[in-house]
This record gives sequence, C-alpha cells and structure tokens, in this order.
Amino acid sequence: MSTDLDLAPAGFVRAIEELPLVDHHVHGAVAHDLSRGAFEELITESDRPVPEWMTQFDSQVGYAVLRHCAPVLGLEPHCPPEEYLARRARLGAEEVNRLLLGASGVAHYLVETGYRGDEILGPSGMAEVTGSPADEIVRLETVAEQVAAGGCGAATFAQAFAEALWERTAQARGLKTVAAYRHGLDLDPEPPGRAEVTEAAGRWLGSGGRLSDPVLLRHLIWTGIERGLPLQFHTGLGDPDLDLRRADPLLLRGLVERAEPSGVPLVLLHCYPFQRHAGFLAQAYPNVFFDVGLGVTYSGARGVALVAESLEVAPFAKILFSSDGWGPAELHHLGAVLWRRAMARVLGRFVVEGEWSAAQAMRVAAMVGADNARRVYGLGAREEGTR
Amino acid sequence: MSTDLDLAPAGFVRAIEELPLVDHHVHGAVAHDLSRGAFEELITESDRPVPEWMTQFDSQVGYAVLRHCAPVLGLEPHCPPEEYLARRARLGAEEVNRLLLGASGVAHYLVETGYRGDEILGPSGMAEVTGSPADEIVRLETVAEQVAAGGCGAATFAQAFAEALWERTAQARGLKTVAAYRHGLDLDPEPPGRAEVTEAAGRWLGSGGRLSDPVLLRHLIWTGIERGLPLQFHTGLGDPDLDLRRADPLLLRGLVERAEPSGVPLVLLHCYPFQRHAGFLAQAYPNVFFDVGLGVTYSGARGVALVAESLEVAPFAKILFSSDGWGPAELHHLGAVLWRRAMARVLGRFVVEGEWSAAQAMRVAAMVGADNARRVYGLGAREEGTR
Amino acid sequence: MSTDLDLAPAGFVRAIEELPLVDHHVHGAVAHDLSRGAFEELITESDRPVPEWMTQFDSQVGYAVLRHCAPVLGLEPHCPPEEYLARRARLGAEEVNRLLLGASGVAHYLVETGYRGDEILGPSGMAEVTGSPADEIVRLETVAEQVAAGGCGAATFAQAFAEALWERTAQARGLKTVAAYRHGLDLDPEPPGRAEVTEAAGRWLGSGGRLSDPVLLRHLIWTGIERGLPLQFHTGLGDPDLDLRRADPLLLRGLVERAEPSGVPLVLLHCYPFQRHAGFLAQAYPNVFFDVGLGVTYSGARGVALVAESLEVAPFAKILFSSDGWGPAELHHLGAVLWRRAMARVLGRFVVEGEWSAAQAMRVAAMVGADNARRVYGLGAREEGTR
Repeated sequence: MSTDLDLAPAGFVRAIEELPLVDHHVHGAVAHDLSRGAFEELITESDRPVPEWMTQFDSQVGYAVLRHCAPVLGLEPHCPPEEYLARRARLGAEEVNRLLLGASGVAHYLVETGYRGDEILGPSGMAEVTGSPADEIVRLETVAEQVAAGGCGAATFAQAFAEALWERTAQARGLKTVAAYRHGLDLDPEPPGRAEVTEAAGRWLGSGGRLSDPVLLRHLIWTGIERGLPLQFHTGLGDPDLDLRRADPLLLRGLVERAEPSGVPLVLLHCYPFQRHAGFLAQAYPNVFFDVGLGVTYSGARGVALVAESLEVAPFAKILFSSDGWGPAELHHLGAVLWRRAMARVLGRFVVEGEWSAAQAMRVAAMVGADNARRVYGLGAREEGTR
Repeated sequence: MSTDLDLAPAGFVRAIEELPLVDHHVHGAVAHDLSRGAFEELITESDRPVPEWMTQFDSQVGYAVLRHCAPVLGLEPHCPPEEYLARRARLGAEEVNRLLLGASGVAHYLVETGYRGDEILGPSGMAEVTGSPADEIVRLETVAEQVAAGGCGAATFAQAFAEALWERTAQARGLKTVAAYRHGLDLDPEPPGRAEVTEAAGRWLGSGGRLSDPVLLRHLIWTGIERGLPLQFHTGLGDPDLDLRRADPLLLRGLVERAEPSGVPLVLLHCYPFQRHAGFLAQAYPNVFFDVGLGVTYSGARGVALVAESLEVAPFAKILFSSDGWGPAELHHLGAVLWRRAMARVLGRFVVEGEWSAAQAMRVAAMVGADNARRVYGLGAREEGTR
Repeated sequence: MSTDLDLAPAGFVRAIEELPLVDHHVHGAVAHDLSRGAFEELITESDRPVPEWMTQFDSQVGYAVLRHCAPVLGLEPHCPPEEYLARRARLGAEEVNRLLLGASGVAHYLVETGYRGDEILGPSGMAEVTGSPADEIVRLETVAEQVAAGGCGAATFAQAFAEALWERTAQARGLKTVAAYRHGLDLDPEPPGRAEVTEAAGRWLGSGGRLSDPVLLRHLIWTGIERGLPLQFHTGLGDPDLDLRRADPLLLRGLVERAEPSGVPLVLLHCYPFQRHAGFLAQAYPNVFFDVGLGVTYSGARGVALVAESLEVAPFAKILFSSDGWGPAELHHLGAVLWRRAMARVLGRFVVEGEWSAAQAMRVAAMVGADNARRVYGLGAREEGTR
C-alpha cells in the first residue's frame, strides 16, 4: 500500500511535521473542563443544540479529534468518543491544553481577543501554557462597542474610537474586522464622510446592540487602515450568523484597490469554499494575503483538498497558515497537524510527480507555515530554540 | 498498478458494493423501448436535439453506461454504443429495467411523481419490477396545477390547494418543490399573506400556463412546511430551463432559518456545483440535509470528486444518497453504482491514509447510503431480505 | 514509487505528449529580449510591480518554467531562476521562441491580435517561427476603437463598425469580446436598438477613451454574431482590471439562449475558477464551448485539477484546448505541456481505475486537443507532417 505520504521523499514529511509554525490567526483555549455536550457544541461552527439523533463526533473534525488528538492524550487512534472524553476529563483542562498545544509545534501565536475573550485564555495565558510568544490581534468592532459602552456621543464617536484604537493597539500586531458577519462584505468601498459617520453613530448609540451599521463598519475599516497594522478580514465559512454568499472575498475588490496605496496588508481569513477567489485576489493585488484556516480543521481528512486549491494561482509569498482555534485545544492542535499533513501530501505529490524539486517544496512549506507571517506582521526572525 | 480501490481494506469495497440503499429521490423508469435518438436525448439534462456532429455517448455518463451497464446486459465493458443499443433493443425495455434496477441494490425507493409521470413507471410499477418497496414524494407545483386544472377561483385557491395537498399526500413520504426552475431560489423567505396569495392566484388562474409566480411558489412551500413532511428542494444543475446562478442553495438561508422552528427537514437535492455551499448549510442548520445525486451520474468517472466535496464540513448524519434517475434505467443503475464506487474510493483513501478507521468508513457509508434517509423519512428499520 | 503517469497504460502518455494540438486562443510571442524585471512582470496576470519582498518565480507558473522550460533551453529541471534567465539571455529571444514554441507541438495557431499587438509577433510571425499555420481571431472592441480613432460620427458608427468588421475579418477564423473586462458579463442579453446605439456612440466618441459602454458592448457582440464566425468570450480569471464576480460565464445564459438560433459557436475562454459553470452551460446548450486555458498555465502542478473539473458534465465535443500565451514563449509552451501532462494524468487515472478504456481516453484527448477546434473553426483535417 502506498499513499502520497509514503511516496514523498524521505525526510520531507518529517521536516514538515517539525516546522515551527506561526499561527497568525487564533483565539485562546478554554481553561476549564468541558462536559460532552459542551465539547460537541464547540467542535462545530453551528450555534444550535446538537440534535439528539446525531453526534458531532460523526464528522470530519470529530474523526480527526479521535485520530490525531487521542494519541497526544495517550490513547489509540480512532478510539470511541466516550473513551476520549473520559481521558480528557481525567487529565483536566490544564493538562489537556499543555499536551495538545505543546504538540502542535506553534512557535508564535497571534491571538485575536475580540470574541468572548473572557471565556478563554488571553495572549499571556497562551504564552504561559505553551512557552511560545503570543501577540495580540485586536478586533475593530469590539473596540467600537467598548467605546459605546463607555458612554460616548455621536459627535465624538469617531474621535473616541480612534483614540481607543490607537491606545488599545499600542502593542498589537494586527487588526481584524468581522464585517462579513455584521453586514456582509458587500460594502461601499469608499470611506464614509464624517457627517455620515456621526449620523450613523447617533442611530447606533441610541438603539444599543452590536455594531452592524454598514457606514460604521466602513468607518472602522478605514480607521483601521489608517492605523497601519495588517488588517484581517473574516471571509468564507463561519457560524449561522453569517450569510456565506455575502462573505465571498471577491466582494472586497473595490476596497482592496482603494486601500492599495496605503501599503497595509489585507489578510483574508478562512475563505472556504472561496479559496480560489482569494488566490485570484492574491495574484492580482500586492496587498492581499490569505489563509485556509478553520476550513482545514472542519474538513479533516479532506483538508488536503483545500490546501491544494489554495496553491494554485497565488504567489507563495501571499499564503499564510492559521488554525483559528477557539475553545477546545483540539481545534488548535488539529489546525496545525491537519495543515502539516495536507501540505506534506500536496507538496509531496508535486515532488513525486516530478513537477517540483524537494527543495522548492520545503521552501514553500516554510514560507506558508511561518516566514510569510513573520514578514507581514513584522515578527522578526525565528525565535531561538522554540522546538 | 494500484488504485484507491485496490488499496482499500479487503472486504471494504465489497461491503459498500452490497450495501442496501435507500434512493430518497428518484423517478420512474421508462417502460417502453427507446430508439438511439431517444436514448441519447435522455442521457443528458439538455432538452435540445443532439447536434449531428456529436453523440451523447462521448461524455462521462455515456462512457459510464458502456462501462457499468453493458456487463449487466451481458456485454463487455467499454463496448461500442451500437452494440450496447442493439443488445438493449433485443432484450426489450422490461428485461432491461429488471436487470439494471435489480443490479443497483436499492432496497427502498422514494419516487417523485410530478414530472411527466405518465411516461414512466409510478411507485407501484417500480416496486413491481424490483421487489423493493417504493413510496411517493409529491411535487407541490404539480398538485397546484391539478387544482387549477380542476377549476378553482382565486379566492378559494389557497383552501383548495391545502385540501388537495393533504389528500394527495395521505400516504406520501415527502414533498418536493421545483421553485429553482420556476423562478429561482432568490425568493422572499417570508410566507405571503392571504390577500397576496389570492391576488397572485387570480393572475395565474386567469392567464393559464405553469405556476411560476413567486408569491404562489412561496405559498406552496409554506403550505408544504405546514403539512409537515420532509421537503425536497431542487438546487444546482438541471436542464436549460434553469438559471444555475439562481439555483445556489445558499439563496435558501432566510427560508431555512424561518422554517427551523417547524422541525421539518429541508433536503437539498443535487447541488452541483454548489455541494460545498450545501455542506455549509448542513453544518450550520439542524434542519438542512443534502445529496449529490444527478451530478454524480453525469460526472461518471469524476463522481468521486463530487462525493469527496460533499464529505467536508457537513456532519455525516446530514448527507443522503439519491440517483434522481428518470427514464432509462441506466440512470437509476449508474446513480447507485457510481455512488458506491466513489464512496469506496473516497472513504477507502481516508482509511489507507490512516485518517479514518475502517469501521468509521463503513459507518458513514451506511449512514449516507440508507440510515439517514430511513430516519429523515421515517421508513423504519431495514426491510428483511431485500438483498 | 508510482504516480498517475507511471500507472497509465504504456504508450498512452507518449501518445498524448505527441498529439499535434490546435491552440485555438493564443497571442503572439515577444520578439525581443527581456530583463528579469520584465520577465517576472509577464509571468503573472497582475499589472502591478512585483513587490521587492517576493519573486514571481515563487509561484506555480514560476516553478513550471524552471521544470518544463529549462530542459528545452538545455538546463536541468528545477534550476535556479538566475541560471534560467542567464541562459535565456544568452540564447536570445529569437532562439528561445524557436525552441519553446517548437517543443510545444502546436500544429495550428488561432492568434488573437487585439491586445498590444504591436509588442508581439502577429499571426505571420508565429507561423514563420514555428512552421505551423497561424490564423487570426479578431477582437471586436479593437475594431470599434480603430473605427473611432479613424474619425466617425455617432450616426454612422454602427454602419462604419459593420463595414470595418467585415473587411477586417475577411480571412479571420473567429472573433473575440472582452466585455468581461470592459463592463462585466452582466449585460442585458438583448441586442440594443439602433437609436440606443447611436446615442451611446455619441457619448463614447465625444468622451474618448476605451470602449466600455454596455450598450456598445452589446452592439459589438450582436454584430459579431451576425458576422457568423465563432465568438470567443473572455470569462474567469484575468488581470486586476477585471471584477471576477462579473466574469462568471453563467451570466451569459440569456445571451446564449438568444444567440442559439444563429448557430454561431460561443466559446468561453479560461473560465477559472468557474470551469464547472462553463461545463454546465456546455451540456445544456449546443452552441456553447469552453476551455481552461490560462488557468492551467498559472496553476502549474495543479493544472491537473482544472482539467479534471472541466471533464465532468460537458459532452467531450464541447471542450477545447488553448494556451492563451502572450509575450514570453514560456507561457505558450507551458500552456501545451501542462495541458498534456494534466490530460495524461486525469484520463490515465480513469483508465487505470477501469472506468474508461484506453481507446476512449485517446479519443477524448484528440477531440479536446485538436479535433473539436478544427470542426468549430472550420480548419479542415490535420495538416500533413506537422510533427
């Protein structure tokens, strides 16, 4: 029996397995134990209760947990879910996090803190558990909502948001927007005028609730571009709060073009199933970068297809790695391990078929796995002795 | 030489070949003989005459007929089309149906009767030829058109349609809508008001013709949801009557959310080339199910790609098998045999690569091939001795 | 180690390698030497300067140049870019063109002359370098712009354009439109009225600039259909001038249907990443043909995926080969060699898996590689001794 991994050049698979990664878009791990119900509800993007006639373990991500996380916890691969969860409970959340995060081989985390950040570890917690540096990515909408919660008038909103953003991001490595969730990426690409912003702020501050006004979302994005840090966009799959049709990265074309003179890197996250659209933008525009995180985790054994589709028309300097893990450390671990295996299979096949040299394959794995992110986010050279 | 099927675990390929299937969306086989011209016009979704400079046999489905149906009729695989059609004519339609349907290993049919039902076998005819139970799926638009044909005023249309639907579906297992053909899935997701329905019914009943008014299509769908049986939606590829852009299942998001409290399963049919969109909806929403029938048949040797793409982000409890066969029993047979081979290749590869266990692969094959449909349509446990 | 190419039947891979091709959509090669900067800017669809932190060689097309063009210039596969460019410079443009075009095995070129035609070889230049016949495809928009440049009033534009088109295409094999670039394919499918055309011509002729008015684009297309030659549509990927969302071939459905009675072949070019959309149209409508040129070149080792996706639902008589090479002869060469390798892998796998016979595979390779184009463009039988 021979598979792509068997066929790949000796040493190549192992080299990819041992590559120290930069996870450029991730959230914290949960620090507390999880019941079976809670665990199952965290290994899906759905926010609905799991129907009683099914289990989330019967999915690609479920089988990947049993395949790749079980051995890290000392179990046989493909063990029953009950056995896995019993071992997980016995070890306790702290030890599970230490084992799974440790085995993922991530040398540097960029942690986005804007989503239910009080339920999970922050950057310092992630750094403490893993021993790897963890910097912060700040979510624009969360800053704006904190400004609103702090009490702010419509006329002073723009000023207050800018001040809060600069202050909040003094140490941050990048920004993120979830405009895809709050409205859709079908936004007017132009920055809104000050009067428009004030009017929209007045409506929003008066009504309360989360920020979803398209004028304000555009204002946040353009203020973020002015801030000058790399700006991440949620695109593609997510939870049911999102209309996938309106999360197609191609919708960002106008914004990409108008932002181009700023030199700010725009980083398209996830993209599934629009990874080819993202690759097109990354070839066309110097300021566009993308990853296929999250989709790879949820596709499990099929993550190889997503990774392959991401390696088509985009220059290799434009592709990044992320796990988008949030909550169970299984998601952080799978993001890394499934990406490594997919890259080894896809690049290994190119080599076996004689299309690429082994050196080219290793070069691209290192670029996508770490070097591109170090350059885009200014992380400096690889830390010493991270693995 | 080793292929995915060669590599797969011993017994695994055979077990999938012998799995008794539930074909949850199928139409009747033709009971009469077919000329070459008629046969070629039935192995394509196009309704145009076949141009004289080509033959439909030069296609994936054509080559699949010669590969997989020829041996069932006692010929060598890959025989010339002329030889195949001569044997088919010599055997006669009845024997061809008996052989091809018999060899497909379908243990239960859910037969949709709304399209040119007088030219093909009905559920009882299908049951008679195969010895497998065959239940009915009722097309909403056909019921409404029968109500109109029976004479009905605008003011009484809604009431008459409801009565006809309840009566017509007393024994049915599910409903189907072809709103994707009649208008597109870009429908207002809200149920229309009674006055709107009456007004639209007045326009339609006065003008005659088939039902394509979006208000009435929405009324049929919401009445169908009230009826409470699983509701199938045509999505994705079909004949030229359909604008594929408006058959993207993502367009159903609003309807899916509004229908969620009803608990009625919404089953997205075909989906090609939007199977990943369907998978996203099936992960997000408990009430969404889907299949890749029809596309698998028309993709022949490439059906494996469609099946693989359907096994990404959706939980496995949400995926069904169908052939969507209509007319020549070759389409019913290929729907089953190509699905079996594709599943064996895709799941077999997961196993060979060490990503899944063989037991997980068999579990998923059984879920998608039969168990999910039995649960969704309430078919009860597997019938005794069906194979 | 065994790959798809190793597994394929003996003689099959070689037969595909030696197949004389018709490149039905190509531009001229550059006749002058290229600096590294100029070369890198020509092996991407982006028109932006290459950022200093990357090289276009780190891409699929870059690695394909080093893999497949280097040996033609007498170097080892996978040599460093510097070595490749040094050899290229030493040989000189004329010799490079002779070697790369000669090794591509193209027996007949259909050269589109409408884009920066003064910087590259014309049809006669291509024929001279290669010894293969080279006919012309005329770009509608270029003819119209020449009419405008020649001085023409709004009221006489339609007449002047028709006269110029008939005259300009006396020897041409086909027409092309770049409406996807100039406006998007979301055009009203109806031919515009004469008064509308005159009004739009007045606006355009008064303002100068390139032709992008949708009324005029429609007028050009419908005049082209009246001319009666096969009409090529740019669809799918291209340079940043293009909104990919508006280059989806499905947008042409209305036009396809209205053009159907004319019998004029409509040929969808490139299509990436919408090749499945194009395949759907090609199954549904007798007048639709398509290729996956350009995308295959830019996808390099992944071109196999695009070719595979093009071989799903479309009848094989509807699929063509093209390179869309423009400028460096590497692009012409790769268009052919990557297509050959992809076809050998995809069709070879169908044969190895037992789904197709070897004879069917060779038949389809010959149809797509040359025979379909000969029929569509009326090129007559294969030229003697072309290879």
